[in-house]
Amino acid sequence: MALALIYIFLFSISFTSIHTHSHHHHPLDPLTAKEFNQIQTIITKSQADPTHNLTFQYVGLDDPDKQTILKWHSLNHTTQPPPRQALVITRVNKQTHETIVDLSSHSILSTRVYTGYGYPLFTFEEQIAANQLPLKYPPFIASVSKRKLNLTEVVCESFSVGWFGEKKKDKRELKILCYYLDGTVNLYVRPLEGITVVVDLDEMKITKYYDRFTVPMPKVDGIEYQASKQKPPYGPRANGVMVAQPDGPGFQIDGHMIRWANWNFHLGFDIRAGPIISLASIYDLEKDTFRRVLYRGFVSEMFVPYMDPTEEWYYKTFFDAGEFGFGLSAVPLEPMTDCPANAVFMDGYLAGQNGKPFKISNVFCIFEKNAGDVMWRHTETGIIGQVIREVRPEVSLIVRMVSTVGNYDYIVDWEFKQSCSIKVGVGLTGVLEVKAAPYTHTDQIKEDPYATLLADYTLGPYHDHFLTYHLDLDVDGDENSFVKDKLVTKRVTDHSSLRKSYWTVARETAKTESDAKTKLGIEPVELLVINPNKKTKIGNHVGYRLIPGSLASPLLADDDYPQIRAEFTKYHVWVTPYNKSEKWVGGEYVDRSRGDDTLAIWSARNRDIENKDIVLWYTLGFHHVPYQEDFPIMPTLSGGFELRPANFFNSNPVLKTRIPMVAHWRNCTSTDT
Amino acid sequence: MALALIYIFLFSISFTSIHTHSHHHHPLDPLTAKEFNQIQTIITKSQADPTHNLTFQYVGLDDPDKQTILKWHSLNHTTQPPPRQALVITRVNKQTHETIVDLSSHSILSTRVYTGYGYPLFTFEEQIAANQLPLKYPPFIASVSKRKLNLTEVVCESFSVGWFGEKKKDKRELKILCYYLDGTVNLYVRPLEGITVVVDLDEMKITKYYDRFTVPMPKVDGIEYQASKQKPPYGPRANGVMVAQPDGPGFQIDGHMIRWANWNFHLGFDIRAGPIISLASIYDLEKDTFRRVLYRGFVSEMFVPYMDPTEEWYYKTFFDAGEFGFGLSAVPLEPMTDCPANAVFMDGYLAGQNGKPFKISNVFCIFEKNAGDVMWRHTETGIIGQVIREVRPEVSLIVRMVSTVGNYDYIVDWEFKQSCSIKVGVGLTGVLEVKAAPYTHTDQIKEDPYATLLADYTLGPYHDHFLTYHLDLDVDGDENSFVKDKLVTKRVTDHSSLRKSYWTVARETAKTESDAKTKLGIEPVELLVINPNKKTKIGNHVGYRLIPGSLASPLLADDDYPQIRAEFTKYHVWVTPYNKSEKWVGGEYVDRSRGDDTLAIWSARNRDIENKDIVLWYTLGFHHVPYQEDFPIMPTLSGGFELRPANFFNSNPVLKTRIPMVAHWRNCTSTDT
Repeated sequence: MALALIYIFLFSISFTSIHTHSHHHHPLDPLTAKEFNQIQTIITKSQADPTHNLTFQYVGLDDPDKQTILKWHSLNHTTQPPPRQALVITRVNKQTHETIVDLSSHSILSTRVYTGYGYPLFTFEEQIAANQLPLKYPPFIASVSKRKLNLTEVVCESFSVGWFGEKKKDKRELKILCYYLDGTVNLYVRPLEGITVVVDLDEMKITKYYDRFTVPMPKVDGIEYQASKQKPPYGPRANGVMVAQPDGPGFQIDGHMIRWANWNFHLGFDIRAGPIISLASIYDLEKDTFRRVLYRGFVSEMFVPYMDPTEEWYYKTFFDAGEFGFGLSAVPLEPMTDCPANAVFMDGYLAGQNGKPFKISNVFCIFEKNAGDVMWRHTETGIIGQVIREVRPEVSLIVRMVSTVGNYDYIVDWEFKQSCSIKVGVGLTGVLEVKAAPYTHTDQIKEDPYATLLADYTLGPYHDHFLTYHLDLDVDGDENSFVKDKLVTKRVTDHSSLRKSYWTVARETAKTESDAKTKLGIEPVELLVINPNKKTKIGNHVGYRLIPGSLASPLLADDDYPQIRAEFTKYHVWVTPYNKSEKWVGGEYVDRSRGDDTLAIWSARNRDIENKDIVLWYTLGFHHVPYQEDFPIMPTLSGGFELRPANFFNSNPVLKTRIPMVAHWRNCTSTDT
Repeated sequence: MALALIYIFLFSISFTSIHTHSHHHHPLDPLTAKEFNQIQTIITKSQADPTHNLTFQYVGLDDPDKQTILKWHSLNHTTQPPPRQALVITRVNKQTHETIVDLSSHSILSTRVYTGYGYPLFTFEEQIAANQLPLKYPPFIASVSKRKLNLTEVVCESFSVGWFGEKKKDKRELKILCYYLDGTVNLYVRPLEGITVVVDLDEMKITKYYDRFTVPMPKVDGIEYQASKQKPPYGPRANGVMVAQPDGPGFQIDGHMIRWANWNFHLGFDIRAGPIISLASIYDLEKDTFRRVLYRGFVSEMFVPYMDPTEEWYYKTFFDAGEFGFGLSAVPLEPMTDCPANAVFMDGYLAGQNGKPFKISNVFCIFEKNAGDVMWRHTETGIIGQVIREVRPEVSLIVRMVSTVGNYDYIVDWEFKQSCSIKVGVGLTGVLEVKAAPYTHTDQIKEDPYATLLADYTLGPYHDHFLTYHLDLDVDGDENSFVKDKLVTKRVTDHSSLRKSYWTVARETAKTESDAKTKLGIEPVELLVINPNKKTKIGNHVGYRLIPGSLASPLLADDDYPQIRAEFTKYHVWVTPYNKSEKWVGGEYVDRSRGDDTLAIWSARNRDIENKDIVLWYTLGFHHVPYQEDFPIMPTLSGGFELRPANFFNSNPVLKTRIPMVAHWRNCTSTDT
């Protein structure tokens, strides 16, 4: 391809989102705006005492039985889909109600009051209401005054309070932290340190207030991140690299089903989990059929404990999915920056506190990625007189959501590869949660600050991020086993070889849940989910392999309260038998939970998992020691893991893939933006 | 940016390589064709006995003293550069000669005969000559005949033989393995198993021959990877995603110096190491100056031991850089597939066995990557009435080489990020080295096959890949220290907090080499190279952090011969004081080495490394259990690590970067290729 000149091409992208006009719902489709309205009406009408304040804390699809879905799916969606039902969690009269609504019959199927520990997700509306309370609360106004600050420049944010061994049942509370704008929008780096505000959410009033100390306010200089507010010199500067697809996007979106290259999957959206990948199947060219890989994949929980034990910080041990909603915190993606030029966008809907639908525009983007990587290649020079060179460039499909949980922005990617891997990526960016402190130089620090000094008066406390993924793999069917192929050193003792040692593979099949729990990084092991009932032509069990990434283990003591609540982080891998109710590793009700409904508790039953429908749970993590580069806004830190076929196919599934055609466009004239 | 339509743009790329017409050599520039010729003349003329066969095993730049380079560099290249010298390793009369040639004075500075263990790199020419020997060797011809194969379809390849405890000095030998084409070019998957051919390279003749057994030949069906030979159905199919740079490449190449965004570095080429990154400096916008990061980075060695202890396989424990030459094995990169459309290419030169220059076209490509990633972002919704969203898309610079060492293809990437990270990536693809065996189904396998059955009659033996990188970090100067920031759990015992535990950072500065040796994955630790003499404004030591990736530890017994030779893999991280002679972790002479000149031996001196000019050595690795998907050609398996600034800057160095302008091109008409 010795082309001297390449022409590139007109292409058009619509930045408008994909609208689902499909008349047939897929049973796993997220609830529509119409359905949210319908649910709101049904629940409101059913209320026993209409004077009670009714708030919708969670409204989402109550997905049908897995076997029902699978049957419907296997019949190519030709039969009547299972009935649409929704799970609705409301607060009424200081109680948590769980209701199942049937949308086809327009009726309530069941309802119960939840009386256990823990509370449902916070709504945005109650957080906003709570955030306003200090601004009208005289002691707080006095605190602002004492600090010689201007109340109109103060903004407040809500934080979950956790559980720290309290015996009697907790109230539904938040702590409110306030920040000082005064010339910046980067509020999180300007905390009014020393003040504790506790709000009772059921009463919506401040119930505790302390102002323990005053420290200098971190400076406003150098904390601004808005492009419009920067002063020269700018930089660094790189030329733009645009992506272009002369033939248009290579995927089709039908409602929430996405088909691309050899993949077919359903993309759902949930207020708690964010994106939910379902029914991911891969087309097997040799067998001329789609084969199942992943029944369901989503972020089940994210645990973010901070490591400062002092009064104002000890409680900061957040469960972002279960408390704040990973989907609720999703933000509209910006074309050309959050996602490249060839991206297509999809909206998401959720219910507000009043049950009415609320749209998040561009909640997902979907695009084909060409990072300049190589799918496979070989140059063969071993045959005299010939040089063989075959290279296949890599193009993959990305599904992206960004969840901004307060200060932090999490970029969540699901990447589908033609070579049949699923790669899960997570990027951490946004603003660090910082602590004001009276230091302008490390020399002044005499005690452990539990933090890095990032700037004048600004500490970046140490913390962790643990993301636990629910991965309901169905490798060529739902009866699967989890195997550990341990790499074990063998010594040669019989002088049969000049070698003294080698390693080989010792397969262990996990019979029960306790066999499956795995801490990685200690012993070399290949982790696979196999189908013990299906073999390749030459007799290997078909499987998918987990290639771990971003390993981190919790460093909190096992008996510490946040760790009891987050015991699911103790192993990188757990495997459970499929159970529809086991979705949220931190429990159904995570706010103020006590760890009595976690993956660790479920798994303690030690159920059989061999040749069963099983779910793999993987926790990736980051221990985050902040550095000055993370301030005032943090360059993305990335991690992830891969699910890669392992004897799933009889041979390389991309052997016969062809290089996409290069299109040339001519006779262009240019204009700038 | 609610654009309904985007136009893309004409851009032109020359696929011709960059030619270096600079009149001024950079002292680190690789030897030019002219210099290779000059060296060849000098060495040939100096030969005592011209009847002796003279072969050039290694010819490369003998780089000047580091301090000399640094001084010259600090004076903005205005002074006379240090003299150009070359290291030449030849074989004459069964002896290894090491000669230093001065190019300016056209003279030999020193010469010595190396009499220690181990031999230099193999030349291509001697491998090719050796590969021909079996084809004229009657016992081999008989073996082919016995197998009812056609000799004209047999091709042979050379393999290093290692060292397995032999006491007396080894000969310079290779083993030759032969393969059967007969309708395929995928020779490596059609071995003539059971035959051992040993060649004495000094005599260039077969000195040992065994034909121990015959097993069926792996089948020719399904092993072809050439696009032209595939039969339908083809697939999977993805639409093309092209990259385009309306403003052209954003980097400048001046000779071998590359400047891009905030980076400035030198890209050299060496027959043994491949790409050598030198003098990488970053422009600090705040300080308005370039600051030093990496004096030198390159692949020092790659160790690939196979795990089959049987007679025909036990010796397969390759050192690809020291035996075969990672640079010598580089292959020309193919535009549009090995590297994207916006790549620029650079040629490499090396000396053939006769000392004459030899060009590898397109040995490197350099391109700006836009993978659709996000450099940093934040959406702020905490200020009522405002939504702030700032997103900076990621564009980085890649320098790529592909080294095809026989069957395997290694894609070696150096990625420079505007956020000042250097990411090192390696991709493994190509063809597995397989073993013929009499199996068509796993049920037939009764003993450990040391391998996965991949196809009929085809085993994929277990093996490892360890790549050790030489990383001579000079963080803001050459006096640096290596520190381990250990994350340690603290229990709260004084009831000062409702928390029972937290973690904090305990810094340990490595005083000597033994302090620095680190096995990763066991304890959580942040590894940094800091400059103990330089602090940020607020007092943190400036540093760079190693974010490890692709961790694997050797599983061979410590006393096994290959592991003695590769003891440098025993720790993921080693730190040594800079020593010009310590470049090759497996020793200067690796073929048949005995482990007496490895990083482990150098480091056993336990030298001081605190506040010294230090070198960090990082080993990434893969334990490779082959799967059927890896056959007949292997989808890329990727890994790598990152060097990330850690309090190197006073704040985020990409805070003030701007989004590259989007150019629009109009009025295009299209044609296809």
